[in-house]
Amino acid sequence: MCTATTYKTKDFYFGRTLDYDFSYGESVVITPRSFLIPLRYSEAIKSHYAIIGMATVIDGFPLYFEGINDKGLGVAGLNFVHNAHYNHEKSSSKTNIAQFEFIPYILSKAKNVEEAIELIDNLNIMDTPFSSKLPCAELHYLIADSNRAITVEFVKDGTRIYENPVGVLTNNPPFDKQLFNLNNYRRLTHKDIPNTFGEVELEQYSRGMGAMGLPGDLSSQSRFVRVAFVKLNSLSKDDEKSSVSQFFHILNSVDQQRGCCEVKEGEFEITLYTSCYNTNRGIMYYTTYDNHQISSVDMHHENLDSDELVVYQLVRDEKINYQN
Amino acid sequence: MCTATTYKTKDFYFGRTLDYDFSYGESVVITPRSFLIPLRYSEAIKSHYAIIGMATVIDGFPLYFEGINDKGLGVAGLNFVHNAHYNHEKSSSKTNIAQFEFIPYILSKAKNVEEAIELIDNLNIMDTPFSSKLPCAELHYLIADSNRAITVEFVKDGTRIYENPVGVLTNNPPFDKQLFNLNNYRRLTHKDIPNTFGEVELEQYSRGMGAMGLPGDLSSQSRFVRVAFVKLNSLSKDDEKSSVSQFFHILNSVDQQRGCCEVKEGEFEITLYTSCYNTNRGIMYYTTYDNHQISSVDMHHENLDSDELVVYQLVRDEKINYQN
Amino acid sequence: MCTATTYKTKDFYFGRTLDYDFSYGESVVITPRSFLIPLRYSEAIKSHYAIIGMATVIDGFPLYFEGINDKGLGVAGLNFVHNAHYNHEKSSSKTNIAQFEFIPYILSKAKNVEEAIELIDNLNIMDTPFSSKLPCAELHYLIADSNRAITVEFVKDGTRIYENPVGVLTNNPPFDKQLFNLNNYRRLTHKDIPNTFGEVELEQYSRGMGAMGLPGDLSSQSRFVRVAFVKLNSLSKDDEKSSVSQFFHILNSVDQQRGCCEVKEGEFEITLYTSCYNTNRGIMYYTTYDNHQISSVDMHHENLDSDELVVYQLVRDEKINYQN
Amino acid sequence: MCTATTYKTKDFYFGRTLDYDFSYGESVVITPRSFLIPLRYSEAIKSHYAIIGMATVIDGFPLYFEGINDKGLGVAGLNFVHNAHYNHEKSSSKTNIAQFEFIPYILSKAKNVEEAIELIDNLNIMDTPFSSKLPCAELHYLIADSNRAITVEFVKDGTRIYENPVGVLTNNPPFDKQLFNLNNYRRLTHKDIPNTFGEVELEQYSRGMGAMGLPGDLSSQSRFVRVAFVKLNSLSKDDEKSSVSQFFHILNSVDQQRGCCEVKEGEFEITLYTSCYNTNRGIMYYTTYDNHQISSVDMHHENLDSDELVVYQLVRDEKINYQN
Repeated sequence: MCTATTYKTKDFYFGRTLDYDFSYGESVVITPRSFLIPLRYSEAIKSHYAIIGMATVIDGFPLYFEGINDKGLGVAGLNFVHNAHYNHEKSSSKTNIAQFEFIPYILSKAKNVEEAIELIDNLNIMDTPFSSKLPCAELHYLIADSNRAITVEFVKDGTRIYENPVGVLTNNPPFDKQLFNLNNYRRLTHKDIPNTFGEVELEQYSRGMGAMGLPGDLSSQSRFVRVAFVKLNSLSKDDEKSSVSQFFHILNSVDQQRGCCEVKEGEFEITLYTSCYNTNRGIMYYTTYDNHQISSVDMHHENLDSDELVVYQLVRDEKINYQN
Repeated sequence: MCTATTYKTKDFYFGRTLDYDFSYGESVVITPRSFLIPLRYSEAIKSHYAIIGMATVIDGFPLYFEGINDKGLGVAGLNFVHNAHYNHEKSSSKTNIAQFEFIPYILSKAKNVEEAIELIDNLNIMDTPFSSKLPCAELHYLIADSNRAITVEFVKDGTRIYENPVGVLTNNPPFDKQLFNLNNYRRLTHKDIPNTFGEVELEQYSRGMGAMGLPGDLSSQSRFVRVAFVKLNSLSKDDEKSSVSQFFHILNSVDQQRGCCEVKEGEFEITLYTSCYNTNRGIMYYTTYDNHQISSVDMHHENLDSDELVVYQLVRDEKINYQN
Repeated sequence: MCTATTYKTKDFYFGRTLDYDFSYGESVVITPRSFLIPLRYSEAIKSHYAIIGMATVIDGFPLYFEGINDKGLGVAGLNFVHNAHYNHEKSSSKTNIAQFEFIPYILSKAKNVEEAIELIDNLNIMDTPFSSKLPCAELHYLIADSNRAITVEFVKDGTRIYENPVGVLTNNPPFDKQLFNLNNYRRLTHKDIPNTFGEVELEQYSRGMGAMGLPGDLSSQSRFVRVAFVKLNSLSKDDEKSSVSQFFHILNSVDQQRGCCEVKEGEFEITLYTSCYNTNRGIMYYTTYDNHQISSVDMHHENLDSDELVVYQLVRDEKINYQN
Repeated sequence: MCTATTYKTKDFYFGRTLDYDFSYGESVVITPRSFLIPLRYSEAIKSHYAIIGMATVIDGFPLYFEGINDKGLGVAGLNFVHNAHYNHEKSSSKTNIAQFEFIPYILSKAKNVEEAIELIDNLNIMDTPFSSKLPCAELHYLIADSNRAITVEFVKDGTRIYENPVGVLTNNPPFDKQLFNLNNYRRLTHKDIPNTFGEVELEQYSRGMGAMGLPGDLSSQSRFVRVAFVKLNSLSKDDEKSSVSQFFHILNSVDQQRGCCEVKEGEFEITLYTSCYNTNRGIMYYTTYDNHQISSVDMHHENLDSDELVVYQLVRDEKINYQN
């Protein structure tokens, strides 16, 4: 499925993996400030924060998987199958927003988590599909700025906004269960461990035994625990390259390798892409399953006051540095 | 510590991670056929198979961590602390070889595993250090050609040669224990799993639950199980780029992230480099911790009949593909 | 802490362990139909179902830990620390019941789970302590008849009534999290397991490997999973002795041995007693930590129309059958 | 299969569970000092230490599963399928002993572990079956006195005598692997555990979380770890009843419940009996699957200088203490 995380050094980084058995034709898409964002139930947004993110553009509309805006807010949508619930009836008191409009709506208008929450409290998420070919995605969201991260879930009982002290999100189960489950791993450590088993000599025969018990499979709960551990223990220099490098190491810990997670007979889920945003500087970095080299797009290298989407195709072919 | 694996598509791939808290100044080193390989206890080898691998060159001698020869045989040495045992007394009936000469010795003379075994059966491994500054490395070995893989351990009881049906090696404990431990994971699967717990409805709430129980930490036994599962379930197209890409995905599953494995207060083991060899074509690929792009060196682009080492410095700085 | 379970053969069995570091002076207590049950916020109950259970009698009031009534309904209270929440304000629309009155209140008036739910829907649980020396117990409840089991939790958000398809309860976390966590164990089985790890021969070196992954520690979540597995897979003849024997085997799987769970320096939680009720026949069976023999008290051997409690002291001393 | 353990308070206790899908008709058997023990390859033993243990008597010969002698030495045989290896050829230099004679032979002649080792070093174990209906049992052995415990395995490579610092034995794999595997659990503890996962608040929501990771299934390796933990952490008063009670609590932690381990379609392995010997006083205690009460037989209540076996049938029917 997917994993999202944050990482902070001098700057603040936000990103995710997208795990699936086929690509949606995604590309890097910059939505400049004057690009008209049409809305199904309200007037189009004419002027807004600039956005960079991964999106599939259909009929001129950027269907974002995740992105950040030029104020440093990040939003990522992750699969939340059977638990996400949207409304079919319009609300008269709240702002009605189609599910697929959620990410651009928030990134257009909120410059931080606090403002995002204010917006969300006033939203009625509609189960309107983008088109007859594109049914509603069942998602929940990691929303973060450099100071705070939250998880937002639209479920049968209504809207749930959780503080996210780990800065991590995967998929099912709902976030409160994911966070509670972390308690079971509280004794894990990057350090050596003493022998407390009993009065018998037991050897620490390998480095790294302090984290024994960390789950290694690809299920959403196991990825949550693993990436949380790697992220919370991560260390790097705070310059750009070192931070970005470490960020990809964090998400590589939940990389889905082809063959390890069968979806249907002979079809396998893989990590289609991994993204990393420097939210302070508006730069997106990414790798794809078959290109290990990091590519990057800088939103500030474009005219952010334009009214046209800027699209960069993903580099999907392995770029090898042939030394001889 | 380290992890080595093999992978077979149309060609045969062999490689490893080297995990440590500091670098030994390693580089890509090609030993052409006429390079004089001096030996401590015998005459130098004047003519031999050509070798490409990762090595630290000191006083003109290539101290290989791992490598392959132009016949397609691969040898990798992995830490085997407290278990490796070398002799202090010379043997009169066997060929005496200093521990650091083992990899070049085998790669010089054996064109496949069978020949390597014949050589090893006749070796007396001496505990002679390369120099007073470089004590003997405590290692065991993965040796593989495209048809067969073995693990070789020099222990107190003598020389142990194990068939290695998984084609994987990490560190402690000795290989027979590592292989036995895999039995505990026999029910893991890349497929969906049925509910056999009992008469109660239990949900498969995520893809990938069939491999729950796979260990996710960095200890040597856990890395062995994890990389074995990923390798044995791996699928890719069989062209060169697809195969190499998948190979790096396999070894990335045991990547050591900075911060997760503390060696001494404030010092952490990381995956310094990851290598992958196409043993059929004599090409080495590698990444370093801070350069996600794959670099490559092709032995056949050099004069393999020369008598001088060819050295390529590792590209350690992140090469980012700036799209704008 | 504690574990409660049900078991069904020809008759229906209900019982629990009580795990703690010291005894509350509990004994087997029968409350006959005409015993006056005083209530703090309402008139005393004069006529009611007869009750048998484990209780501490203080000032003539039976403070039940668990019990059944002569209609076959069972209620057990289990520790639910930091999550149980009772009200401080009386309700004018609901029946106010002090927390310690809950078990006798339900067992007095409900002949099955359905009636218990009706009663509970109309209750306002007060945080009134029994006395200044006996603060409110923080509990949640397993309530079961031979056809249905529920878990009842009084939490900050109000009263939660969960269907309990497993018929098992331990302690924290709240029941919905406990039940969800069972999903992670759905592939466990009492059967042999095939090798699905990959193309390598892996041995089933022992019977019982199909349940590998079942947790063995004494934490509440691990006990929940373990006892659920043992209960759902349990088999026995359906006569009384075989059923009772199997019931004690089920709860023995979560027995707390002295020394394995330290509460304070040098103080350890143990399974003080284990109880088992044949709810159809009104018989209570129990063992204590230091008496492995099963003792029993039959409510129908007493005058159930009396107005006085009947109390049997627990047999706590090991009764050994000396054969010579 | 089976589990054996030792426990020391003021006296020394030794015992085991026997897990199987059907009974061998075992009973408590005392072999007095003058009972003639016939041997297949040597003269019968006429005078020897007295033995008490669990045995099936066939044609007047006590086929012991386990037992102790009046000097305080205990020997228990546990299943070791596919690994036990006995010789088919008689040795001219060693004492030839049929496999089924091993326990009575050792208990007849050795008063402690040291003497047992001396005897074993001189044994050639023959694969001679007791009769055509009773093929050789594939076993390994726990041998213990109050100061020392060893494991003895007759394997293809010869006789292996391991110090057993845990005083525990189950079944496969061979003992060195079982003992090594304990290293993986060295951080388990009966104490509370700190949060070392990372900078996020994680709750210790239950007592007993320090032993999370302890395996709970019935496979031989999991039982080894679990009973080792329970035994090494066990605490009790040192009087006879308290010690015996705790001993049964230790072995109850590996009790096999009917239904949890299927051997063949519809056939299940259960703990047929659990035994406990006070080796200092020559008393045997036991329970059976369907009788939770502890029964006992004291060898010193019999004439130990007799030449006839003394047999006590097992009390297999649940002895309930009816209090009313």
